[in-house]
Amino acid sequence: MEAMEALSRTRVVLTRPSHPGNIGAAARAMKTMGLADLALVAPRHFPDPDATAMAAGAADVLAGARVFSTLEAALADCSLAVGFSARERELSHAPSTLRDAAPSLIEAAAQGTVALVFGNETSGLSNEELARCQRFVVIPSNPAYGSLNLAAAVQVVCYELAVTARAFAAPAARERGAASVGDVEGLYAHLEIAASSSGFLDPEKPGRFMERMRRMFARARLERQEVKLLRGLLSALEGRKR
Amino acid sequence: MEAMEALSRTRVVLTRPSHPGNIGAAARAMKTMGLADLALVAPRHFPDPDATAMAAGAADVLAGARVFSTLEAALADCSLAVGFSARERELSHAPSTLRDAAPSLIEAAAQGTVALVFGNETSGLSNEELARCQRFVVIPSNPAYGSLNLAAAVQVVCYELAVTARAFAAPAARERGAASVGDVEGLYAHLEIAASSSGFLDPEKPGRFMERMRRMFARARLERQEVKLLRGLLSALEGRKR
Repeated sequence: MEAMEALSRTRVVLTRPSHPGNIGAAARAMKTMGLADLALVAPRHFPDPDATAMAAGAADVLAGARVFSTLEAALADCSLAVGFSARERELSHAPSTLRDAAPSLIEAAAQGTVALVFGNETSGLSNEELARCQRFVVIPSNPAYGSLNLAAAVQVVCYELAVTARAFAAPAARERGAASVGDVEGLYAHLEIAASSSGFLDPEKPGRFMERMRRMFARARLERQEVKLLRGLLSALEGRKR
Repeated sequence: MEAMEALSRTRVVLTRPSHPGNIGAAARAMKTMGLADLALVAPRHFPDPDATAMAAGAADVLAGARVFSTLEAALADCSLAVGFSARERELSHAPSTLRDAAPSLIEAAAQGTVALVFGNETSGLSNEELARCQRFVVIPSNPAYGSLNLAAAVQVVCYELAVTARAFAAPAARERGAASVGDVEGLYAHLEIAASSSGFLDPEKPGRFMERMRRMFARARLERQEVKLLRGLLSALEGRKR
């Protein structure tokens, strides 16, 4: 199963959202991570210009959002419903953390639609809403202030799922043009001669100067172009000394 | 080094933010993940009532934010500066993904202050700003729409660092009151008798009924209280038949 297909079978369900701006921001958060299926349960205001403004380039996700009067209806065709919270709750589900839960949610999306259920901005998911979910997942957060904004919670959950699904290619390793060992040894030899002839290094008592230089340049993992630049600089400095 | 100490030594640097609401939302995102050190480089409007409104309960982070006129000044006491982007860039740093980079950023925070540098909402980090950073980290996102809101990007990065640092305790495994094997076997025996005496199950040809029931209840990992409820229900149903 393709990662993008798993994400396309993942629905975000916002229950009783109060602020239409959050609906738009959630749509944007979803789209940045490759999700597109948005369901709204009894939103206070929708459609709304604030939702449209906050969706920015995710107007398509917002336009495709479906409105349901009950959570049950929004979940009717889903094979798994997952309730999210930033805090632990007294209830019958054993909670798991987002990172621990993510692989099994991606697996479940291979079987059918997975619903990610988020509660109202102020009150979160009610116990009744949570009882409609088969799993309960906690976003780890500061015990002293766990108040993630609704769209921020959607963003974090969608990010975690996209990374777990390996949905997006890692940035391409750019052609580094790494210097060859020969190039780098040439630099070291040049450096040692320049250091000696300038009087900075006493060839009789060289100490650990070259060892330190080798360690430093090894960490930098020099590129061919950089070796050329450094040798050009050394030559210029040597010229000034003469 | 304590995880919370690593997070307290991690600074969020917002360069040239245009919208004060994003500054407040970033402060809130930071605090939810245990970060508190916020630096603003040449903000267009700050302080501002929009910033205060969006910070919600993170007014302390906002109040402690320091304003600098240059990125260089904001980074002066940092031992590592990390530039973030949702998209790849033509530049000299080899990019790494947020997840791959996170462990080394937490390690670096043990050596000194680590700066997480975010660019302007519209234009992102300039090449000059990126050149002030020693590392370049990409937040994986939809190639067709990688436009994370500034505060959403801050939220995702802070979340990834907090999880990597294991900053917050996993939700406590609640006392489940798991049923004993004896309790569950008692239920199976009861169920088999009830199924037979009701006529549903032919004792001569039981098929795989009990095997299927055992498999189903094993998945549910029954609790003591649930076994009691199910046996009570069975007894009541048996009574009705008589």
